[in-house]
Amino acid sequence: MTTDLMRPEALAEAVLESFERTENPRLKEVLQSLTRHLHAFVAEVDLTFEEWETAIDFLTRTGHTCDDVRQEFILLSDVLGVSMLVETLNDIETPDATESTVLGPFHMVESPKRELGDNVSPSSVGQTCVVHGTVRAEDGTPVPGALVDVWQADADGFYDVQQPDLQPLGNGRGLFTTDDQGRFAFESIVPAHYPIPTDGPVGELLAATGRHAYRPAHIHFIVTAPGFRELTTHIFVDGSEYIDSDAVFAVKESLIRSFVPCPAGTDNPCGVTGEFVDAQIDITIHAESDDEN
Amino acid sequence: MTTDLMRPEALAEAVLESFERTENPRLKEVLQSLTRHLHAFVAEVDLTFEEWETAIDFLTRTGHTCDDVRQEFILLSDVLGVSMLVETLNDIETPDATESTVLGPFHMVESPKRELGDNVSPSSVGQTCVVHGTVRAEDGTPVPGALVDVWQADADGFYDVQQPDLQPLGNGRGLFTTDDQGRFAFESIVPAHYPIPTDGPVGELLAATGRHAYRPAHIHFIVTAPGFRELTTHIFVDGSEYIDSDAVFAVKESLIRSFVPCPAGTDNPCGVTGEFVDAQIDITIHAESDDEN
Repeated sequence: MTTDLMRPEALAEAVLESFERTENPRLKEVLQSLTRHLHAFVAEVDLTFEEWETAIDFLTRTGHTCDDVRQEFILLSDVLGVSMLVETLNDIETPDATESTVLGPFHMVESPKRELGDNVSPSSVGQTCVVHGTVRAEDGTPVPGALVDVWQADADGFYDVQQPDLQPLGNGRGLFTTDDQGRFAFESIVPAHYPIPTDGPVGELLAATGRHAYRPAHIHFIVTAPGFRELTTHIFVDGSEYIDSDAVFAVKESLIRSFVPCPAGTDNPCGVTGEFVDAQIDITIHAESDDEN
Repeated sequence: MTTDLMRPEALAEAVLESFERTENPRLKEVLQSLTRHLHAFVAEVDLTFEEWETAIDFLTRTGHTCDDVRQEFILLSDVLGVSMLVETLNDIETPDATESTVLGPFHMVESPKRELGDNVSPSSVGQTCVVHGTVRAEDGTPVPGALVDVWQADADGFYDVQQPDLQPLGNGRGLFTTDDQGRFAFESIVPAHYPIPTDGPVGELLAATGRHAYRPAHIHFIVTAPGFRELTTHIFVDGSEYIDSDAVFAVKESLIRSFVPCPAGTDNPCGVTGEFVDAQIDITIHAESDDEN
């Protein structure tokens, strides 16, 4: 292995060979593919030592920025479109289900269990909205007993974990169980667009590349039910700023929903008596066959 | 950007487009190449969400393992052959200079200034060696006043920073200035082969892939002089264990040197009177022309 390492191709071969004795065949496949593409990247741009040092420093500071309430590596994966690519590859297998999108960095606390019709944002001020829909299988059958985990920013664009002094933990979050007809419903406020955190290395990257940090307004969903593939997605508010230039590339046409203004007195499943905006959000989840597990 | 993101290729295009307004052309080139290769890797292996989560966790823990005396990202770059690739690409431009090799993770404290002939390992027990040579330009001219920074493990394979209770900081290290004939010389002990640190994420990676963690015995050099390109390299001890399977792929044939046993009384530039092994290490550095800077 000492001969002819002067050739970059021979070096890549030596690294690939070093992974040949990996017991887990999937781990071997992933690491050998990573090695090929990583070496191809470094060779293509003819990376200098100073640039390599910058990269090591960037990754180290990204790691040091991560703590219990901050995940800077997920943010990095998001702004490079990698998180969305993973979701997109996953979606190809389930063309009839609701499309998925990124998890994002703010699903770090458990959502409080709430009853259907409850308000998920009791500590927030904003435009009242009523979100409701039915969880169904791909054949249209409603799925009773599905868990619907939702979380969202407030009308200023902040999640509870970002404002520990202003929002109690759990504000903007709720964990619901669909009823015997697969339905869920909750009251909330219309979320605002917001910037991803820019005070860390990822913020430096966006600034250096002339990119804005904003995400269009959305509500996060994770839907799970026995026998179904877990679905992680958002619903985007139609007409929100930045809907065409999400900093993390997570918008899909099929996930944009109208939030429709309704006058006071309009019938709704949350018992709201004043005016509100109505968002109907039906969700289709993928029934796992035995051979997928 | 919301249309047709279901196609992985369209997603990669959207990310590439997002970097189009980068002011620095080199940063733009590097990030767009990184995006293409990173997306190609993720798509090629059809990375699952669980695997992505494992990768995020691995990178986060790698960052958290880094501190003032530990650089786990350099170690990761080393075991993936990326550090060596950067050196190899650099070497292609300077075919007549001494080949470079990886910096490694232990150049984290300043080497103490020492006089020519001094012992760099006064606190170590082992086989005495005398290391000496001449620093020259590519045309053979000696380079007086060059700085020769050396650092090495002891006879048990440990650097000073790994044994704060056993070795004073600076043991195994020295910063020398070549004399008017470009010569340097120092006394030391023959270093041992040693494992890279395996108690962090990189150690897990090596264990999971059936790779050993050892590096063959070597002495690190950084040589600098005004008007010359900085050279980072090692000299490897001929016949050392693991010379054919360095965990970080850093061995080049041209960097292996014989450490020749000499009886007591043999003339040497360090005034050693007992028996010792002699290592002659001549080094050629690359004269920078103005247009390289």
